[in-house]
Amino acid sequence: KACVLPNPTSVMHIQDPASQRLTWSKPPLNVLVIRKIRDETLLEPFKELCRFLVEEKHLMVYVEKKVVDDGSLMRDDSFSAFRNQLCTFREGFDDISDCIDLIICLGGDGTLLYASSLFQGSVPPVMAFHLGSLGFLTPFKFESFRTEVDKVFEGNAAIILRSRLKVKVVKGTFQRNEQLLKIKESKYWVLNEVVVDRGPSSYLSNVDLYLDGRLITSVQGDGVIVSTPTGSTAYAAAAGASMIHPNVPAIMVTPICPHSLSFRPIVVPAGVELMITLSPDARNTAWVSFDGRKRQEIQHGDSIKITTSCFPVPSICCHDLVYDWFDSLAQCLHWNVRKKQTRLTDASDSSETEN
Amino acid sequence: KACVLPNPTSVMHIQDPASQRLTWSKPPLNVLVIRKIRDETLLEPFKELCRFLVEEKHLMVYVEKKVVDDGSLMRDDSFSAFRNQLCTFREGFDDISDCIDLIICLGGDGTLLYASSLFQGSVPPVMAFHLGSLGFLTPFKFESFRTEVDKVFEGNAAIILRSRLKVKVVKGTFQRNEQLLKIKESKYWVLNEVVVDRGPSSYLSNVDLYLDGRLITSVQGDGVIVSTPTGSTAYAAAAGASMIHPNVPAIMVTPICPHSLSFRPIVVPAGVELMITLSPDARNTAWVSFDGRKRQEIQHGDSIKITTSCFPVPSICCHDLVYDWFDSLAQCLHWNVRKKQTRLTDASDSSETEN
Amino acid sequence: KACVLPNPTSVMHIQDPASQRLTWSKPPLNVLVIRKIRDETLLEPFKELCRFLVEEKHLMVYVEKKVVDDGSLMRDDSFSAFRNQLCTFREGFDDISDCIDLIICLGGDGTLLYASSLFQGSVPPVMAFHLGSLGFLTPFKFESFRTEVDKVFEGNAAIILRSRLKVKVVKGTFQRNEQLLKIKESKYWVLNEVVVDRGPSSYLSNVDLYLDGRLITSVQGDGVIVSTPTGSTAYAAAAGASMIHPNVPAIMVTPICPHSLSFRPIVVPAGVELMITLSPDARNTAWVSFDGRKRQEIQHGDSIKITTSCFPVPSICCHDLVYDWFDSLAQCLHWNVRKKQTRLTDASDSSETEN
Amino acid sequence: KACVLPNPTSVMHIQDPASQRLTWSKPPLNVLVIRKIRDETLLEPFKELCRFLVEEKHLMVYVEKKVVDDGSLMRDDSFSAFRNQLCTFREGFDDISDCIDLIICLGGDGTLLYASSLFQGSVPPVMAFHLGSLGFLTPFKFESFRTEVDKVFEGNAAIILRSRLKVKVVKGTFQRNEQLLKIKESKYWVLNEVVVDRGPSSYLSNVDLYLDGRLITSVQGDGVIVSTPTGSTAYAAAAGASMIHPNVPAIMVTPICPHSLSFRPIVVPAGVELMITLSPDARNTAWVSFDGRKRQEIQHGDSIKITTSCFPVPSICCHDLVYDWFDSLAQCLHWNVRKKQTRLTDASDSSETEN
Repeated sequence: KACVLPNPTSVMHIQDPASQRLTWSKPPLNVLVIRKIRDETLLEPFKELCRFLVEEKHLMVYVEKKVVDDGSLMRDDSFSAFRNQLCTFREGFDDISDCIDLIICLGGDGTLLYASSLFQGSVPPVMAFHLGSLGFLTPFKFESFRTEVDKVFEGNAAIILRSRLKVKVVKGTFQRNEQLLKIKESKYWVLNEVVVDRGPSSYLSNVDLYLDGRLITSVQGDGVIVSTPTGSTAYAAAAGASMIHPNVPAIMVTPICPHSLSFRPIVVPAGVELMITLSPDARNTAWVSFDGRKRQEIQHGDSIKITTSCFPVPSICCHDLVYDWFDSLAQCLHWNVRKKQTRLTDASDSSETEN
Repeated sequence: KACVLPNPTSVMHIQDPASQRLTWSKPPLNVLVIRKIRDETLLEPFKELCRFLVEEKHLMVYVEKKVVDDGSLMRDDSFSAFRNQLCTFREGFDDISDCIDLIICLGGDGTLLYASSLFQGSVPPVMAFHLGSLGFLTPFKFESFRTEVDKVFEGNAAIILRSRLKVKVVKGTFQRNEQLLKIKESKYWVLNEVVVDRGPSSYLSNVDLYLDGRLITSVQGDGVIVSTPTGSTAYAAAAGASMIHPNVPAIMVTPICPHSLSFRPIVVPAGVELMITLSPDARNTAWVSFDGRKRQEIQHGDSIKITTSCFPVPSICCHDLVYDWFDSLAQCLHWNVRKKQTRLTDASDSSETEN
Repeated sequence: KACVLPNPTSVMHIQDPASQRLTWSKPPLNVLVIRKIRDETLLEPFKELCRFLVEEKHLMVYVEKKVVDDGSLMRDDSFSAFRNQLCTFREGFDDISDCIDLIICLGGDGTLLYASSLFQGSVPPVMAFHLGSLGFLTPFKFESFRTEVDKVFEGNAAIILRSRLKVKVVKGTFQRNEQLLKIKESKYWVLNEVVVDRGPSSYLSNVDLYLDGRLITSVQGDGVIVSTPTGSTAYAAAAGASMIHPNVPAIMVTPICPHSLSFRPIVVPAGVELMITLSPDARNTAWVSFDGRKRQEIQHGDSIKITTSCFPVPSICCHDLVYDWFDSLAQCLHWNVRKKQTRLTDASDSSETEN
Repeated sequence: KACVLPNPTSVMHIQDPASQRLTWSKPPLNVLVIRKIRDETLLEPFKELCRFLVEEKHLMVYVEKKVVDDGSLMRDDSFSAFRNQLCTFREGFDDISDCIDLIICLGGDGTLLYASSLFQGSVPPVMAFHLGSLGFLTPFKFESFRTEVDKVFEGNAAIILRSRLKVKVVKGTFQRNEQLLKIKESKYWVLNEVVVDRGPSSYLSNVDLYLDGRLITSVQGDGVIVSTPTGSTAYAAAAGASMIHPNVPAIMVTPICPHSLSFRPIVVPAGVELMITLSPDARNTAWVSFDGRKRQEIQHGDSIKITTSCFPVPSICCHDLVYDWFDSLAQCLHWNVRKKQTRLTDASDSSETEN
C-alpha cells in the first residue's frame, strides 16, 4: 500500500514550551529580587523577604541599585545596616545575566516583564508574588512566602516555559539623494507583545505584514499587536483577541481597531518569521514599543522582524500549568462573575403554560 | 436668502419615551402584585407586601390565581384567612387590563416581562423590587418597601417609558396545490426582544429583513434578534450589541453569529416597520419567540411584522432615568470591575529610564 | 381610574433629526463647491461642475482660495479665464456662512466633514458626489451630475438632518501655587466624532465620563470615542460599535480597547450633556481631536463638554433616508459579501442519513 | 551554577501537525472520489475526473454507491457503460478505510468533512478541488485538474496535517430509582468542531467545562464550540474566535453568545482532555453535533469527552502551508476588501492647516 512518509528534514523543531518540572543540579545560591518601585506598600514585604533570604536561607541577594536607593528605604535606619549585605547592580551597566540562579518578583505583572528585559539569553526560573490581587503572571501569595520559597528550593515545582519574541528593528539612515548611508540594528526581547501603532497622529496607520518573507496582508487601523500567548491576556485581549494558554507554541497577530471589519486576530505557529514595515502608500510614520517600553518611530525603509526566541522565561507555577492559568483568568477578567441569570426563562416564571 | 423649510406633513410623530414624572389624578386603588413562582425565598416578602397593601394601605390587591394556589402558600395557615381578601384572576380567562392602577413586581427581570405580556394596550405604572441582586428592570430594594411604596403613592416619582415592540405573525395554510386556504394572524407585545433562530436544526438559518417594505439584507447565521432599547442589555448584549438607554427611540437588529464577519448590529429609528421572512433559498425553517415565550415555527410564506408599539411600559425609577440605568449596567455587567491595572506601564515601574 | 399624567415641563424638546423634504422659498443663488485637494483625478470633474453651475445655471459659485490656487489648476490655461468668475474665500479669514444657499461636495466623506467645519450655526443643504466608490456620506454619482443638480433645484428632494456634536474644551492656566490664572474656552462642531486617546504615550489613558454632571464611569484603555449616529459607521465601527441610522436622536460612547472586557459601547439620548476629564489618578495626559482635526493635549483640570448641536447638517439624499443608508453599508462594509456558504450543512451533502 | 533541568518524562509528545512533504513509497493505485451530491453543476466535472483517473491514469476508483445512483447520472447513457468500471461502497456497510491511497474531493468544504468522517484511524492524503469559489479546505482549481493530479502523483507536494478531535459521548440509562442500568459509549472524529447548544429550547444552556479532569468554568449562553484550528475559520469565527493556522497544535473553546460579557474564546494545548457535561443546576438539556452531523440530546449524567486525535487529515496544499491559508482567508472572509479609506484624514484634505 502506498503511504505517506513524512520527510524528516522538513520537520520544524521549535523549543517546545511544554510542561516541565524544576530540578536543581545544585542548591540555588544567587537570587535576584525585583520589586515595583514607587509603591510604598511593598516596602515592608521587600525588607522582610530580603532578610529571610539573606539571614535564614544564607543566599546572595541581588537588587537593582535604584531599588535600595529609593527615598523611604534610605531614610529607614533599620534597613541601612542590612543594606551592605545586598549586591546591587545598575541596569545597562552591570551584566548579572550569568550569575543568577533564581529570580523573585514582588509586585504586579510588570515586574516579570522587567525581569525578562534584563536577560537576553537564558533566563533563570522566576517566582512571582502578588500583594493584594492575583495577576496573570504573579501566582504566589506573599502571605506564605517562607513556605512557598522553601518548597521551590526543594525542587520539583511545576514550571511553565513562557515563550518570548525576539525582535530586530532595522533602521536606515539616508542621504539627501535617498542613498543609504548606514544601517542600525537594535534587538529586543519581549514577554508580552510588540505594538506598532499610529503614535501621536490621529491618522490611520498603514503597515504591511510579511510572513516568512511573503506579504500576507496590510493592516489599516490604529495599529497591530504581535504577542506571545502570555501577552494574549494583556493588550491583545483589550483589542479583541482570544486567550491562548502560554503552553501553545504560537504567535498572535491582533489588529487594533482595523478599518476592515472582517479582519480578525490570527494565530500562527511559533517559529515563523514575521516582518512589519510601513506600507508604501502610508502617509504617516508608525511607532513601535516593546512590552510598553523603548518606544520609537518607524519610517519608510525601516523594518521590524519578529520571531520566537530560543530563550523562554521559566515561570514557576503555584499549583500547576492548568490551574494557575484558569485561576488568573477567573480573577483578572472576572470570568463568569456576572450573576447567573436565566436570561430567557424569567418571562415564563410566573406562567406554567409555556406556549 | 433661499432656505430649507421642513415639510410639516413628513415629520414623524412617535410616542416619544421621554423623561416623565408620575402624577396621580386620584389615589391608586387597585394594585396588581406579580411574583416569580417556584421561588420559596419570595414567599415571606410576598405575604408581607400583600398584608401591607391590604391592611395598611387599604388597597384592592390583584394576584394571579396560580400564585396563591402555590403549594407552600396553600399549606400556610396564617395566609389562608387573609387569602380571601385578595382578588384572583387567571391569565387568558380574566381580563384585568382595564382596572389596574399600579403593578408591583417581586423577583427578577422576568416578572416585568410577564407583567408586560398581560397588557396589550395601555400599561399601568410598574414598580419592581429585587431581592438579592439588582436587575436591569428591578431598581427597588425590598428591604425598605414600605417607604418606597409610600413615596410612589405621593406621586412625582421619575418614570421611564420603556418602548415595546408590537409583533404580528402571519401564517398561511396551503392546499396541496399550494393554493392559499386561509391566513392566521397572531399578535404579541414584547418588552425585550423578538428572536428568530435556527431552532433544533444545526443548519444556518437564512432570513430576509425588510424595512418599510423594502428588502434590506439577508441574515445568514444562527438567527437575528429584534429588540427594544430595554432588550439591548439582555440577549442582544450577549450577541454583541451596544447598550442603548431605554429613552432612545430606536429599534435594534442584532445578528446572532452571522456568517458574514462584517455584519454588525444596526439601530434604526422607532416607528419603522420591520418584516422578517425565510429567504426563498432557505433549506430549513426558522423559529421565533417573544420575550422567550410562545416559541413557534416559521415556514416559507410566513412573515413576522415588527414595529414600535404605542403603549410603552411606564417603569417607575428608584432614583432617576440616568442613575438607575448606569447603576444596573455597573451591577449586572460588572462594568469596570476588572481591577485597575496599568497594562503597559508596569514594565517600566522598576525603571526610571523610559527610553 | 388613576392615571399617568406626563408632567409637561419635564419633556425634553430636542431638534429632532427626522424625515424632511427640501423646499426652496426662492431659487438658490450662491453655491459653495468643496473639493478634495491634492487629488488630480478630481480636476476635470471640478472644472466641469463649476462651468455648469456658472455658465448654465447662472449661479454665484464660491470656492476656497487654495482650491483654485492649486498647482495644476494654475497651469491650466483653459481655466485661467474662467477663474475670475468664481468667488474665492480663505478659511478663518472670510466668513461665508451667511451667504450660501447650497453646498456641493466633490470627493470622499472628508469633504462633508470639512464643509461641516465651516459652519458653526445653521448649515445650508449639502449635495455630495462620489467619484469611484460610494461613501457613507456621498450618495450621488458624478456621472449624471447635471440631471441630479437639476432635480435638487426643483426641490422636494429627501433630506436627512445629520445631527452634530457641539464640543467645548475648557482649559485652565495655573500659577506655580496651583492657583487658577485664567480659563480658555474653545468650541468645535463635529459631524462624526470627538476622540480622546492616549496620544503619543504607550500607557493606558484614564478618563472619567460624566453625564448631566454625574460621574458615570471611568474609561481605562486606549481612549474613548463620542460620536453622532453619522460617526457610528466611521472610527466607532472599527472600535466595535453598532451602526446607528443617522435619524436616531442619540449620542454614542465607544471605548477604544477598554481594559475592562465587559465594557461595551453605549448609546444615550441626544440632548444629554457629556463631560470628559482626566481621571484624578491618571499618570498621563490624554489627547483630543475633532473629526480628526485640531488635535490637542488634555491635562488635569481641563474638561471636554459635549452635547448635541442645534444645527444639524441637512444632507440631500440620492434616493431616500432608508435606501441611501443601507446602500452605503452594503458598499462600504461589504455587508453580506461573504459568499453564501452552508456552514454546517456541507458535511451531510454526501450523506442522506442525517442522523 | 544551579540550573533548570527539564524532566524528560514530563515532556508531552503530541503528533505535531508540522510542515511535511508527501512522498509515495509506491505509486497510488486506489483513489476515493467524493462529490457533493444534489449539485447538478458537479455532474460533468465528476464524470470527466473519473474517466481521467480510470482511463488515463489506470487507477481503481472508489465512489459511494448513492453518488453513482444519483438520478441524473442514472439517466445518462454515456455514463452507464463506464459505471461498471467504478468500485462502489455504502457508508456504514463497506469498510474501505484500509485500501485507499488517495482521496479526491469535488465540491465545497463539506466534502472534506465527509471524507474525514469515513476514516476513524489513519486517513489517506486528500486533494480537494473547488468549482467556482475557493473554500477554506479546497485549494485546487478544477480547471487544471489533469496537471494538478499529475503533480501530486509525482510526490513532494506540500502537505498540511489537519488535526482532528476524537470525541466520546457517554450516556447512561437509569432506572426509576436513579440507579444506573447501562452505559452507552459512542465515538466521533471531527475535523471542524463539536457544538453543544441549547437545541430547540429558547432557554440558556448551562454546561460545565472540565480540563484534564478539573472543572474550569461553566458556560452559560447559547452553547459552546470546541474546534480544531481548521474549525477556527468555520462556526467558531462567526461566534467571535480568532483564526488559528491549522499547523498550531491547539484546541479552541468558543462560547456562543455567553451571558458573561467578559468570557472570551480560549485556546489550550493539543493533547489535553476536555469534558463537557450539563451543569448540575441546568434546567434544560443540551444538544451536541459533530461537524454538523449526528445531532443528539445530552442529559444530566451524560458526558462528552474531547481530545486531539492521533490521526490528522493530511490535506495536500496547492501552493504551501502559508500561502494556501492566507489565500483562503482573503477569499472567504473578504479580508481587507473594505476599500482603503483614510478614515481620519479626509477631514483635512481640503485644509492644509492641520493646526
